[in-house]
Amino acid sequence: MTTLDDYTRRAMELDLANPLAAARSQFDLPDNESYFLGNSLGPLTHAARAAVVHALDEEWRNGLVRTWHDGDWLELAGSTGDLVARVIGAPAGSVVAVDSTSVALFKVLSAAVTINKSPTRRVMLCDSRNFPTDRYVARSVADLHGLEFIELEVSEMPRRFADDVAVMTASMIDYRSADLHDVRAVTAAAHDHCILTVWDLAHAAGAVKCDVLDNDIDFAVGCGYKYLNGGPGAPAYVYAAPRIIGSVAQPIPGWFGHAEPFAFEDTFRPAAGIARFSSGTTHVLSMKAMHAALGVINRYPIEDLRTTCIRLGDFFVEGYGTFLSTGGFGLGSQREGARRGGHIALLHPDAERMSKELIARSLIVDFRPPNVIRIAFSPLFLRFADVARLVGELSRLN
Amino acid sequence: MTTLDDYTRRAMELDLANPLAAARSQFDLPDNESYFLGNSLGPLTHAARAAVVHALDEEWRNGLVRTWHDGDWLELAGSTGDLVARVIGAPAGSVVAVDSTSVALFKVLSAAVTINKSPTRRVMLCDSRNFPTDRYVARSVADLHGLEFIELEVSEMPRRFADDVAVMTASMIDYRSADLHDVRAVTAAAHDHCILTVWDLAHAAGAVKCDVLDNDIDFAVGCGYKYLNGGPGAPAYVYAAPRIIGSVAQPIPGWFGHAEPFAFEDTFRPAAGIARFSSGTTHVLSMKAMHAALGVINRYPIEDLRTTCIRLGDFFVEGYGTFLSTGGFGLGSQREGARRGGHIALLHPDAERMSKELIARSLIVDFRPPNVIRIAFSPLFLRFADVARLVGELSRLN
Repeated sequence: MTTLDDYTRRAMELDLANPLAAARSQFDLPDNESYFLGNSLGPLTHAARAAVVHALDEEWRNGLVRTWHDGDWLELAGSTGDLVARVIGAPAGSVVAVDSTSVALFKVLSAAVTINKSPTRRVMLCDSRNFPTDRYVARSVADLHGLEFIELEVSEMPRRFADDVAVMTASMIDYRSADLHDVRAVTAAAHDHCILTVWDLAHAAGAVKCDVLDNDIDFAVGCGYKYLNGGPGAPAYVYAAPRIIGSVAQPIPGWFGHAEPFAFEDTFRPAAGIARFSSGTTHVLSMKAMHAALGVINRYPIEDLRTTCIRLGDFFVEGYGTFLSTGGFGLGSQREGARRGGHIALLHPDAERMSKELIARSLIVDFRPPNVIRIAFSPLFLRFADVARLVGELSRLN
Repeated sequence: MTTLDDYTRRAMELDLANPLAAARSQFDLPDNESYFLGNSLGPLTHAARAAVVHALDEEWRNGLVRTWHDGDWLELAGSTGDLVARVIGAPAGSVVAVDSTSVALFKVLSAAVTINKSPTRRVMLCDSRNFPTDRYVARSVADLHGLEFIELEVSEMPRRFADDVAVMTASMIDYRSADLHDVRAVTAAAHDHCILTVWDLAHAAGAVKCDVLDNDIDFAVGCGYKYLNGGPGAPAYVYAAPRIIGSVAQPIPGWFGHAEPFAFEDTFRPAAGIARFSSGTTHVLSMKAMHAALGVINRYPIEDLRTTCIRLGDFFVEGYGTFLSTGGFGLGSQREGARRGGHIALLHPDAERMSKELIARSLIVDFRPPNVIRIAFSPLFLRFADVARLVGELSRLN
């Protein structure tokens, strides 16, 4: 039987073989900190810090209002969107960074309903295990447009798909269990009934290959502050399939979504592309951090991110099987890496106390009532050695 | 007749007597720069820079996700709102900082329409000289709710007020001419017909006493990056009269507007107070700059801001009368300070060339086609000496 020493030695070998091992140096993380919450708030990159300080000192202080013309502020929502696009498998020009996820989802669902609602299509389906905010927003959009609102699990949706459904919305990754839904199959089944699909990638982008174009998703939204490391409250983003961008309208027009923002025209003319999902002025400081952090992610192939993310999780599952499967622990996530997002829910009746003790040992996890320790395997900065240390502490804490 | 030397000497005397003269040291502005665009992008304060750097290094880098509990991020939208409240004459707890002005206006107009629309109230009135984005958003909300949308000048509105109108919306200050509307009279006339009033304070807050409570305004929005100096693309804010906050619903619910954001409840329960206008996660970095800049403004009585703003503008008008009233110049704003916001539109057929030459001399103004030089008198950092220098250059450039 393997000992913890063997397991730790294996971790060091895996770190040496990890093609992303050097990426940790891009992050401003203390060496002794094992940060398992990249699914909640990604850490600071050196690039993000430098970009924000540059924005303060050069662009705002020295450039002042001139930077709107001489700098990149006007393009920032689009250029940040293009960097997101490469992470989620979308073509350039199909993603724009805007608002918060709630507002972005409101816009996208409203756009989808406006396209697809008809006297016979009067139903919106919503993932019943979706992040609560998404469910609140979806219900609000349904109410606003007089649609019947039905919540059910994503796996149940294909059986409910029918020609009375206008729109379905779900998260690609379950924010509790990390279950990865079969996006391609669900989307295809929806399209068989001409239902528009709206996916939330918040817990997926940067940990999973989202392949939004390849999966033929109609619309997607997501947040910038999880695996994308965009900073606290980083802006969200909107994706629309290139085949429909040009015919889409959303309900919050604004000058940053106008074809000619500085023409101050009497009536709204949407920008030709995805910029039409912008409304007001870009939150420059927050967006600068996100843009720079995405520059870091984009140095590495998304395939490598996904592979390392799975391997880190699999290594934890292996340690769980060997050292934690007795003594009250349970696994609240899929064992098979390919069916999992970036995190794992570890179950234990004493999860709250254990979380606190782990955090006190610089093993940063979080507790979710009643019995979940959430552990995320962010691929760019997490080490197999962190996983080995976590498993070791968990086995001692029990 | 006064000479430019006399005028410049007067400027120095007025600077000495200005109770806000010392406030310029709070800003990171080069001594030789005369910045007349506080109405477009307020300059960097030392406090805002320090707050953002602290957020990067201490709160994000070191605190990471723990800062959500140990720091002030959760309260930031409310505490920033409270600082705005003091500037616009609102009680604590009636303002929250959120989103962009476009999104904030969408929420507020939707809330107002939801309250007041009825089978017999089916009209929305909108300021025809409003900032274009506001007009786009207002029309969108009217369309969404099946209201008739009528644009007319604010001065014409009282004659149109009748029991078929649900909501009126206008800017307190005209963004081109700087005309200050009679907010109290228009609001009172609206209330005579039970019409809800939504005012945009973007060009007013920090330059004008908005007195939203005293004027009995129902809802207001505004942006953080003009006279409030909150930084490029700073968040916007929402005000709702305390008498109606508790009964208001807006269409973009989100966890930051929930009574218990971290309870992850199945259905949305709005926060008791103005926080219900929040949706997604606060854009922390952008909000930190705005919060700190508002801390600076709040060191000075709003009465002094208004008085100095008017005096700077009046001093310009005086210089205009003496040195610029011939040679093709015209005044596109009210001569009387009390009827003006924070800026003045100077008209000249050659405005574009002149603007460029002024900027080349560190007199930072902007040109608005076809013939307007916009000059703003931000009271916290602008000097009467800047105004004298501007008038002198303008007289030479002609």
